[in-house]
Amino acid sequence: MNGKKDDGIRVSRRGVVKGGAAAAAVGAVAAVPHMGGSQHAQAQSAEDIANARGLTPQDVTAALKTYVPSGKLDEYYIFASGGHGGQVLVVGVPSMRLLKVIGVFTPEPWQGYGFDDGSKALLANGGMNGKTLTWADTHHPGLSETNGEYDGQFLFINDKAHARMAVIDLRDFETKQIVKNPHIISNHGGAFVTPNTEYIIDGSQYAVPFGWEYAPLSDYKNSYRGAMTYWKFDRETGKIDPSQSFSIEIPPYWQDLADAGKGPSDGWSFSNSLNTEMALGGIMEGQPPVEAGASMRDMDYLSVINWRKAAEVIANGGGEDVKGMKMIRMADAVANGLVYQVPEPKSPHGVDVTPDGKYMVVAGKLDPHVTIYSFQKIQDAIAAGGYSTDEFGVPVLDFATCVEAQVELGLGPLHTQFDNTGHAYTSLFLDSAIAKWKLGGEGVDGGWTMIEKIPVNYNVGHITAVEGDTVTPQGNFVVALNKWAIDRFAPVGPLHPQNFQLIDITGENMQLLYDMPIGIGEPHYAQTIRASKLQPWVTYPEMGFDTLHMQKKDGAPEPGKEGVIVEGNKVTINMTSVRSHFTPDNIEVAAGSEVTWNITNIEMAEDATHGFALPGQNINLSIEPGETTTITFTADTPGVYPYYCTEFCSALHLEMMGYFLIKP
Amino acid sequence: MNGKKDDGIRVSRRGVVKGGAAAAAVGAVAAVPHMGGSQHAQAQSAEDIANARGLTPQDVTAALKTYVPSGKLDEYYIFASGGHGGQVLVVGVPSMRLLKVIGVFTPEPWQGYGFDDGSKALLANGGMNGKTLTWADTHHPGLSETNGEYDGQFLFINDKAHARMAVIDLRDFETKQIVKNPHIISNHGGAFVTPNTEYIIDGSQYAVPFGWEYAPLSDYKNSYRGAMTYWKFDRETGKIDPSQSFSIEIPPYWQDLADAGKGPSDGWSFSNSLNTEMALGGIMEGQPPVEAGASMRDMDYLSVINWRKAAEVIANGGGEDVKGMKMIRMADAVANGLVYQVPEPKSPHGVDVTPDGKYMVVAGKLDPHVTIYSFQKIQDAIAAGGYSTDEFGVPVLDFATCVEAQVELGLGPLHTQFDNTGHAYTSLFLDSAIAKWKLGGEGVDGGWTMIEKIPVNYNVGHITAVEGDTVTPQGNFVVALNKWAIDRFAPVGPLHPQNFQLIDITGENMQLLYDMPIGIGEPHYAQTIRASKLQPWVTYPEMGFDTLHMQKKDGAPEPGKEGVIVEGNKVTINMTSVRSHFTPDNIEVAAGSEVTWNITNIEMAEDATHGFALPGQNINLSIEPGETTTITFTADTPGVYPYYCTEFCSALHLEMMGYFLIKP
Repeated sequence: MNGKKDDGIRVSRRGVVKGGAAAAAVGAVAAVPHMGGSQHAQAQSAEDIANARGLTPQDVTAALKTYVPSGKLDEYYIFASGGHGGQVLVVGVPSMRLLKVIGVFTPEPWQGYGFDDGSKALLANGGMNGKTLTWADTHHPGLSETNGEYDGQFLFINDKAHARMAVIDLRDFETKQIVKNPHIISNHGGAFVTPNTEYIIDGSQYAVPFGWEYAPLSDYKNSYRGAMTYWKFDRETGKIDPSQSFSIEIPPYWQDLADAGKGPSDGWSFSNSLNTEMALGGIMEGQPPVEAGASMRDMDYLSVINWRKAAEVIANGGGEDVKGMKMIRMADAVANGLVYQVPEPKSPHGVDVTPDGKYMVVAGKLDPHVTIYSFQKIQDAIAAGGYSTDEFGVPVLDFATCVEAQVELGLGPLHTQFDNTGHAYTSLFLDSAIAKWKLGGEGVDGGWTMIEKIPVNYNVGHITAVEGDTVTPQGNFVVALNKWAIDRFAPVGPLHPQNFQLIDITGENMQLLYDMPIGIGEPHYAQTIRASKLQPWVTYPEMGFDTLHMQKKDGAPEPGKEGVIVEGNKVTINMTSVRSHFTPDNIEVAAGSEVTWNITNIEMAEDATHGFALPGQNINLSIEPGETTTITFTADTPGVYPYYCTEFCSALHLEMMGYFLIKP
Repeated sequence: MNGKKDDGIRVSRRGVVKGGAAAAAVGAVAAVPHMGGSQHAQAQSAEDIANARGLTPQDVTAALKTYVPSGKLDEYYIFASGGHGGQVLVVGVPSMRLLKVIGVFTPEPWQGYGFDDGSKALLANGGMNGKTLTWADTHHPGLSETNGEYDGQFLFINDKAHARMAVIDLRDFETKQIVKNPHIISNHGGAFVTPNTEYIIDGSQYAVPFGWEYAPLSDYKNSYRGAMTYWKFDRETGKIDPSQSFSIEIPPYWQDLADAGKGPSDGWSFSNSLNTEMALGGIMEGQPPVEAGASMRDMDYLSVINWRKAAEVIANGGGEDVKGMKMIRMADAVANGLVYQVPEPKSPHGVDVTPDGKYMVVAGKLDPHVTIYSFQKIQDAIAAGGYSTDEFGVPVLDFATCVEAQVELGLGPLHTQFDNTGHAYTSLFLDSAIAKWKLGGEGVDGGWTMIEKIPVNYNVGHITAVEGDTVTPQGNFVVALNKWAIDRFAPVGPLHPQNFQLIDITGENMQLLYDMPIGIGEPHYAQTIRASKLQPWVTYPEMGFDTLHMQKKDGAPEPGKEGVIVEGNKVTINMTSVRSHFTPDNIEVAAGSEVTWNITNIEMAEDATHGFALPGQNINLSIEPGETTTITFTADTPGVYPYYCTEFCSALHLEMMGYFLIKP
């Protein structure tokens, strides 16, 4: 440690020969031209780079902790909502690279999503008032769980704007189902799964009369209602089964986030009710805006629901049909002991069950504390009876009796995640910070205490830690999902990116590692899973695969059986694609023909996707190896329409085309 | 350099006090907890990280060259097409972070693009056969130029699938115009701008009868045609002026990439014609597929067009009206000396004019060479006369007379960019490599020679270098736009990402720095510009701004003038938005009302965007600071529709809502 050369950033053979990567590293050095025998040149170079670029020591370690070399794979996936883009974003950790945008509620032409018959029908099934919707406000992705751990099989996500729920299969990262909640019009407390994915929890946001039927606002307390919906998931079919799903009617408060119990609290769900003031605004009439009216009370409610018992009520023929789906009415829910409320301060946002299932952590965004409730104390309070009710007759337990602890963290606490060493992390919106604090409980010394805060930039909403809402959090990283960027990225006009910040939580102090701008949608919530838990397909398992139903398609076009069948004004085209041509290539039909066009990509090589663009019909398809896709349309406008492959599949990709002629 | 501690990666105070960033760096070190007086701990940490993560010395330098610390800005923007996603991607360099997705041809709900009246009309204007299109195959972004340099004002991009062109204003990164080419149905050789953005060049891809009118394929040589279109751009209005634009009729070959002359070749444009075989496939009829038929000839053509003289012909009343836009017919073009062809090998893809404007570099994807043509030699050959013609009567100059040099690079050369030290870089699709070679010409020793190749992963299409197609390339980086990823990223199902690879070209050897997966669309082409050349707005310049017409909107809602005006069945809502409420908030209309809803975001703080979701009408808006937006719709289905802000704007964002009631 003396002399000029001791200082600065160095890379040397000695440095890298340690550890398992040694041999490869040395080989790489040897292979680099103009470096042979001159490790020092490279060492200087690393030092010079850091100096020239003004990197601090912190920057250097952050760079080295996040860089994923060419061809190496990220260790974790983040599944993030795409906000009002209506998609799901898949991000690799620690590199924070966007690996994929999954089309869910919004057509995504480069995936062919919303353009072929199957995905068009899927989107139409998620319509409302008889209309297909072409956007959504995706909020909370929920990974399927087995025994309270992510199992890597399915992903669910809600649409706040229209109270819908979607199912994504993680074998092919494609959306398989969209269901519209017939009871409510907007949701927020979804998608949250029960520990074995029996149900997907979906809580209403803004209260409306069920089925969003007209009733004047003056009739709010009588006619407007909230609901907690439990969507039954069938793992075999990979689909939600609305016939086995049900809602529980609740007061017309707004439900914010929800969570399912686990371990001792399995069978129960928890959700935050805000605007228990039932403020309705009326600015032009001299009333305070909702933001003020809904912030008047010091306490709102934690809703505590026995979903397992509710499911038994339904299984035993309980509930009534409301708008085509089962509902347990509020009075029945109370009578059956399904619903309880516990006061919680103030305008709560997140409710997060600790990994051991014993505690519910509530962040009240207008209160500087997190409030920790004991599940056992809540159960004791329920068993003790003698509680009061709210004006809708729903039981309200005593606050002090149910609370385990409160921890003062700072301004605007929103949402909490957990690590593998007994800590919790809570986002602070107004402080623009993440607070790390120590969980308490039986056998824990010095628990329920604040440890440290790290600033984030800016206005953090949710956070995600690695498997940080499961029974076995993995630690390592927390990601802040920040709402504002202001001037922290190269400017891109008045509409700024959101951003993710990756934070290392392995050390004594949290370290900010990486800023990832999100130039698309607004991710509200995300979950992070070990990549090893997923086993995605890299091609479809057999040629002629129907990707919506995940099975071989009857009559899928195959090599040697291509052709055009004309029966009256019905034309069926059976086509195959392979580098670099479609068979048949040139097709002529009479104007007015009803065309059914089936295409099988007969390639089974990884990444050998073909696109299919048909001008004049607003069609683009993405046909992955093995897939069969169908489009139907009326050949309405006579003319010459050259179709072609939209994936650069080979050197002769530009020649992969044919003519579709509509004869007058 | 002796003793154990000399080796390995180090960061120390001494290392960073050098250079301009010194003071800040030292401050940062001092501020890091648990590092005071213990630089060594941090130094060990960096070494340990590299070892633990298996980073090679090359990886370490790559990490340090690409990492952009929190709050620091990228130095360059890449504007990349979004392929069949129909958007433009904005990427920061050297971090390779996606800064923004700009909606162009495809609705993007999170931007409100395609959902408000203005952008809906814009998309409708880009329709065909009377239908709005909701996707495109964006290929080649073209930045506006002044004197052959990027000026950072506008970006143009083509839609190959429907032969459209779009204009994006780089003050707000939003699309302002889409025009449909009335002559052709698909394009490829666009958008390429002339050196002062007088015109945007747009070459046809697949030949059709003009206006894509029906004619049988058997009539191909008579009825099908190509065209080079020159869209006149009006910098004052920021719009293309179709009334001043024109096409030149050319033979029914396919036009691949194009480029504008510069310096001595200014006034001319160049494009590659492939499938001069006029192969039409016919697989079911026993003919070879197009990929084979179009690859039979050893030579295709470089099309050389005098656009300045063509513009004079039009200005002097020449050309005829074809489908509502001016066209110079092929015979007139030949008679006026506007169009020449030079043979070029074989199935050419890119034609790229050297920075000095003296040479045209052509990459023939089935020939291992790039072929360099001399503009002066082409001019001399034209002046000499006596050339032959093709079967359409278009002059064909002599190959040997026009060629300056050929350089053998490898398999599948596609596209060439330039640096600031006299080098060219050419993508090799089949080799999966980038070739660096030395330009030649007057006064250059050892020019027209291959230097080195670097492998890329895999199947590189286009490349982009910093301002690498202008008169003043900036060097530093080349980016490979790769089509296949196969197994180089964490798997995301059968549809794999494309990817960009960032390559450092400052050293004696090219160094691969970073792999960026592209989980959205397929970027075909990109341009890279110094960030300092752009001056984007961070808010709109005044409250009540009409962002489509870039001026204050007459009668835009403003504070104190909000309200609802009912005139018969016409309802006008004038609304303002500010954290965290809309004024008015609750609105009731009669079923069947024709609603016009104007909203002004009265915030002028950077990043204070509000969203606006209206369920039941498939509407989401993004209203940036200062913007006024309008939607019109029929209030058709009675009910209760809570609308709300879709941008997490404040701690009380969830409370930023109101009720829209449609009374039966």
